[in-house]
Amino acid sequence: MRHARFLPVALVAGGLVATLPSDLLAASPPTHAHAAYAAVDPFIGTGGEGHTYPGATVPFGMVQLSPDTQIKPRKEAYGWAAGYRYDDTTIVGFSHTHFSGTGHSDLGDVLLMPISGDVRLERGDVSKPLSGYTSRFSHEGERAEPGYYAVTLDDYAVRAELTASARVGVHRYTFPAGKPAHVLLDLRTSLYDYPGKISWSRIRVQPDGTVTGFRETRGWAPGRQLYFAMRFSRPLAGHALHNTEQDIPYKGFAPPAAEDPTRRAQIEGRQLVATFDFGAAEAAPLVAKVALSPVSERNAIANLDAEVPDWDFDRVRGAAREQWTQALAVLEVDAPDDARRALYTALYHSLLGPTLFMDVDRRYRGPDQDVHVADGFTHYSTFSLWDTYRALHPLLTIVQPPERTSDFVNSLLAHRRQSPYGILPVWSFHGLETWCMIGYHAVPVIADAYVKGIRGFDAGAALDAMVASADYAPYDGIGAYRELGWVPIDEEGEAASKTLEYAYGDWTIARMAAAMGRDDIAKRFTRHAANWRHAFDAKTGFMRARNRDGSFREPFDPSASGYGTDYTEGNAWQYSWYVPQDVAGLAKAHGGVDRLLARLDAVFDAKVDASVFAHMEDITGLIGWYAHGNEPSHHVAYLYAHAGQPWRTQERLAMIMRTQYAPRPDGLAGNDDLGQMSAWYVFTALGFYPVAPASNEYVLGRPFVPRATLHLPNGKRFTVVADGLDDAHTYVGRVTLDGKPLARTFIRHEEIMAGGELRFTMQATPDRRALRGRDALPYSQSTARR
Amino acid sequence: MRHARFLPVALVAGGLVATLPSDLLAASPPTHAHAAYAAVDPFIGTGGEGHTYPGATVPFGMVQLSPDTQIKPRKEAYGWAAGYRYDDTTIVGFSHTHFSGTGHSDLGDVLLMPISGDVRLERGDVSKPLSGYTSRFSHEGERAEPGYYAVTLDDYAVRAELTASARVGVHRYTFPAGKPAHVLLDLRTSLYDYPGKISWSRIRVQPDGTVTGFRETRGWAPGRQLYFAMRFSRPLAGHALHNTEQDIPYKGFAPPAAEDPTRRAQIEGRQLVATFDFGAAEAAPLVAKVALSPVSERNAIANLDAEVPDWDFDRVRGAAREQWTQALAVLEVDAPDDARRALYTALYHSLLGPTLFMDVDRRYRGPDQDVHVADGFTHYSTFSLWDTYRALHPLLTIVQPPERTSDFVNSLLAHRRQSPYGILPVWSFHGLETWCMIGYHAVPVIADAYVKGIRGFDAGAALDAMVASADYAPYDGIGAYRELGWVPIDEEGEAASKTLEYAYGDWTIARMAAAMGRDDIAKRFTRHAANWRHAFDAKTGFMRARNRDGSFREPFDPSASGYGTDYTEGNAWQYSWYVPQDVAGLAKAHGGVDRLLARLDAVFDAKVDASVFAHMEDITGLIGWYAHGNEPSHHVAYLYAHAGQPWRTQERLAMIMRTQYAPRPDGLAGNDDLGQMSAWYVFTALGFYPVAPASNEYVLGRPFVPRATLHLPNGKRFTVVADGLDDAHTYVGRVTLDGKPLARTFIRHEEIMAGGELRFTMQATPDRRALRGRDALPYSQSTARR
Repeated sequence: MRHARFLPVALVAGGLVATLPSDLLAASPPTHAHAAYAAVDPFIGTGGEGHTYPGATVPFGMVQLSPDTQIKPRKEAYGWAAGYRYDDTTIVGFSHTHFSGTGHSDLGDVLLMPISGDVRLERGDVSKPLSGYTSRFSHEGERAEPGYYAVTLDDYAVRAELTASARVGVHRYTFPAGKPAHVLLDLRTSLYDYPGKISWSRIRVQPDGTVTGFRETRGWAPGRQLYFAMRFSRPLAGHALHNTEQDIPYKGFAPPAAEDPTRRAQIEGRQLVATFDFGAAEAAPLVAKVALSPVSERNAIANLDAEVPDWDFDRVRGAAREQWTQALAVLEVDAPDDARRALYTALYHSLLGPTLFMDVDRRYRGPDQDVHVADGFTHYSTFSLWDTYRALHPLLTIVQPPERTSDFVNSLLAHRRQSPYGILPVWSFHGLETWCMIGYHAVPVIADAYVKGIRGFDAGAALDAMVASADYAPYDGIGAYRELGWVPIDEEGEAASKTLEYAYGDWTIARMAAAMGRDDIAKRFTRHAANWRHAFDAKTGFMRARNRDGSFREPFDPSASGYGTDYTEGNAWQYSWYVPQDVAGLAKAHGGVDRLLARLDAVFDAKVDASVFAHMEDITGLIGWYAHGNEPSHHVAYLYAHAGQPWRTQERLAMIMRTQYAPRPDGLAGNDDLGQMSAWYVFTALGFYPVAPASNEYVLGRPFVPRATLHLPNGKRFTVVADGLDDAHTYVGRVTLDGKPLARTFIRHEEIMAGGELRFTMQATPDRRALRGRDALPYSQSTARR
Repeated sequence: MRHARFLPVALVAGGLVATLPSDLLAASPPTHAHAAYAAVDPFIGTGGEGHTYPGATVPFGMVQLSPDTQIKPRKEAYGWAAGYRYDDTTIVGFSHTHFSGTGHSDLGDVLLMPISGDVRLERGDVSKPLSGYTSRFSHEGERAEPGYYAVTLDDYAVRAELTASARVGVHRYTFPAGKPAHVLLDLRTSLYDYPGKISWSRIRVQPDGTVTGFRETRGWAPGRQLYFAMRFSRPLAGHALHNTEQDIPYKGFAPPAAEDPTRRAQIEGRQLVATFDFGAAEAAPLVAKVALSPVSERNAIANLDAEVPDWDFDRVRGAAREQWTQALAVLEVDAPDDARRALYTALYHSLLGPTLFMDVDRRYRGPDQDVHVADGFTHYSTFSLWDTYRALHPLLTIVQPPERTSDFVNSLLAHRRQSPYGILPVWSFHGLETWCMIGYHAVPVIADAYVKGIRGFDAGAALDAMVASADYAPYDGIGAYRELGWVPIDEEGEAASKTLEYAYGDWTIARMAAAMGRDDIAKRFTRHAANWRHAFDAKTGFMRARNRDGSFREPFDPSASGYGTDYTEGNAWQYSWYVPQDVAGLAKAHGGVDRLLARLDAVFDAKVDASVFAHMEDITGLIGWYAHGNEPSHHVAYLYAHAGQPWRTQERLAMIMRTQYAPRPDGLAGNDDLGQMSAWYVFTALGFYPVAPASNEYVLGRPFVPRATLHLPNGKRFTVVADGLDDAHTYVGRVTLDGKPLARTFIRHEEIMAGGELRFTMQATPDRRALRGRDALPYSQSTARR
């Protein structure tokens, strides 16, 4: 799937003219690819609560090298989950690992800071310039594009540029000439910081000047080990290794030169910081390259040597740019600049995770903290599954080669094999389980892949893993759920949400089992898929949590949210529509489609005081009760079309696209959640959305760009056209697929992958004719029907 | 080197008759081997400050499974360095790792305690019975023999028996019938305990009931990881996993069943304790087998399955007994019972370390904390080199096959390759460097092996490693030492001791280099070997520390000892005779042999108030200033003979053997130091001692047993006879080797290894005829001479 190489332009960054080496000057990329790359704005989402980072990475890369503007203690860490906030005016340093868009955090590993002149070992107070090593910066001195970030550190007059390969972050620091140049390495800092987070760490200066080390943290994932290896383009003139921990209970016997930080070859402890000195700065910039490894320092060195054997920052930058250009080339968009910026950036954000998690020798550290070899597949981690099973993983089945998805599935299956619990991951990163959020949403990811015909993994083992995970009694009330049909709220919190999501997960198991001819499993899980009915309270029309004795928990407040309520990051107004596997059944339970859709109108049209969610960090992006900033709402606007009344979806989507996205730093209404928010945007801009992954169907919305072509990984092209689209023509009239009228509210995955043209004729007024019948409505209009 | 199998007798232990499986009933061992095994008393050294442990291990085994009588905080831990003190009346539990005879401590990993009835999770107060899980015991209910230990835990009426294979500890617990039986696993306890020592730990109950886990400690060796796997002979009726840490700063998201300790499958943290329940006890005892691994839980399981696939405690015990019988068979002694007990126990203590440190797949964790494979050799760790280079390693070249020593050398060389410092270990255990004590005494161990003709390692790489270690400037003043010829006390503490020991180490490098024909190195280090002269103060007749400017440090107090003085664990009276490589030179510096020996008399005959060493834990076993409880004195009594006046050595040895050793728990005058004290005893009892390892010569003392035969690993026999030895005849008259008069004060290594008979004719009065001349005195009478 290798695109032709392209002719790069000279890149002017902060006055430094960077050129690309001749081996990249081979051939031209598709014209649109170049423009796609240029359209991406990595700053989108770095303001507000988008929690994206602007730094350098390659698609699905293991290293995310990005500036951290402040290091916040745990209680204030939410807004700094990606290390960077656009409103900040300081930079603490450049660390090598970041989540894109999470609502919780960790990482921020191996922080480097170039320092000119005097070295201070502490970060200092951001309100007091020069009180520590933190420097001021401004957005004028800043630049970001996929795989490249540059900033001027005003307090040091240092130009810092960052780029990355898969496992290596490369820094180019231009120091003011004549002044002493230093690089500080801080192993004490961490995103989501708290005292005691670092359980152990180590820095070694090897005889050849290579700096290696490790740290083990007790964070979101406990017992996380990460190793690194770092080399500088100039010999060390000196170094100092410090342990700043106060009152170390027992230091042990002294290693060589223990009393002299400048002569130590190694240091271990829990609060380590090092400085590396390069004498008076020369005109040539200093290049620092830092490789990560989950396995060992030795492996980090191997990663470094394999990926960046030279000192050519521009080569690495050019290679990153080429990878991004290739990845973004999947989408060719004809649209106004703002829409292009928003859409390509959304696509960019959809290609940041899951992230590569194995060394060049294919070894990685698994959920048992042991080292394993990824035999025959590429191992990934960072699975924010509660978010990403909805739209991100389905999108990746379209915009990435199928091998990417089968690698994901193999990674999930490896996790299951290596898990001490014997189940698929819930929310994992760096190989480790965090138990964050609810459900067993690795299950729909695998089922979606399988029913789409993606192979390259052991389907029998996958189905076993899915069933084992769905039946794992000790986890979040599953034991009682299998016994009763619902999660009892008197035994398990957030029981309504869990019952609903388990039922959907069960349906996806049934789908895959049926496709495999495993009728016993299909039958059992089809039965379980109807468990959503146990949560439905016909009296109030809401999904609610039952007690073990079958009664609903009282008192009931449909606006109530929070830990300990019936719901997970939401309330009854948000969670009551989560039956993607049986929308027809849901409508029937409500007394018919119109009754259900009237309830959805009540959701969108409610007058809601946002302060009702002041205690909930993740419920943002409100339109009435609809909360676009969090995932439980993401399919809701599509339910109108799904139920046969597409014009109402078109209206709601216009409202959401207008109010919840903007191509500026604070342009995301909530956490990007490893690309789920962005994947929603990509799908919605193209006019369709996977309401029920594993159904193989996408519900039609309306396009938000005049024309877009998917250059599919299978070589075919699928084009979406919105004829007559402008601000006055926002409703869909006629829809054709390859010229033939498409009298349905959905399109099939295989229709997209076959290539062709989906053409919407836009009009000024809604087409209020409802569509009905088994051929017009998606599969999940009746789970019993097909 | 496999001896014939022998016919075991039924072993009666605490009323339980244990039988050996039929496959061990094959053949008879040498008659003396059986008796040798029976003569060993593992309790010797467990009282006083011997710091030996009475528990179960195999020769050089990785597991040392032994009772811990109290867990002491750091400041009180010295006396409990091996976990057990004979005077104690309680047992906390049985842990799987112990040093034999150290003066510092660590280990005590994976502590198990069988509990009958109610479970208490804390150890409790030893002065308040039943205040915790600790139980009382008495020596009446206790039994120890090599590879086997048994005790009755009085508070539970539980009979606990322990045995071990190389990597697996096997427990057999007989619970009182009818009462609930439990096993408690405490990962919080550690020898040399202090708050914060456990940086991370983990316990997992695998689906098949196997319990695995890990802990990482910041102890004597920082960042030490140890993994374990445990299986029980009966299915678990229940379990509970607890984290007793207070105020955990951040717990992360809850894993399955987090609130219920009895349903958790896994727990991680810094203060973990678990209980395993087996219902009402049955008549059949419960067997628990625990494997260790430095690599991973998976490797621990592999070790367990490979070594102890069954539940046959008696088979494992029988195999341990067979290994010990074979190992002890090297020495056949004809002597009174007390002497036999002392001598065989000393031999036993000489075979406990270095300890195996690799898994069955040959992997281990090295000084870089990374996992390595021991390719072509068996990897050992626990190198207490400052102690053991003196007599223990030389003894092992005689009583063990040469492969054992070449494995040690290969392990030392692997450490050097994997060391972040690029040097040989100083004091290492579990693969890690502790930097304990001084010198580079891996160097004489390797040189001694090489000059004795032991091969099986890369001699060129070995010499490189020796030179690199001896030239490693940042370590303990070596940079200045190479520059000046002495370690300057104004820059580095304990400088006199360091100068002396470096000079000896340098001589051993020269010895090996000369033997290899590497004349350049031999020449340089022969020059360095004379650096002891820089420490000699002709005015006072003591070795002293010089400042960089060449002046001796003032004021000078020859009785002063302690950290920061001129000496390491000693004073001028103890350290001034440390020139084993050039005793003639030392005598000359003193103004002649008689002047030197008069000084030695002053050492032994001084009236010393022992309270002068109250601040020094390790200086014990005083005879005047002579401190047999610590290593710097160990060669001193032999210097008389070495200098040609053997009768004076004979007198001093009698005094030392009479006052410093006894075959009872408090029978060691000081820490056994991984067998150094015991190896001194073995040599001395046999009548010779390696004053200068790497000289290939042993200085003659006098035998302390009437007859002893070494059944050498090469199949030859070397017999020492002391004709007429009794309490009235303690001096040596005539000495013959194979019937020919031996008019020398030494015997060569090759003479021993060739087999033969060394016969001493004992007499009542000293033979005061001094021996003189190059043929009569050892090599090191003049380093320049040969």
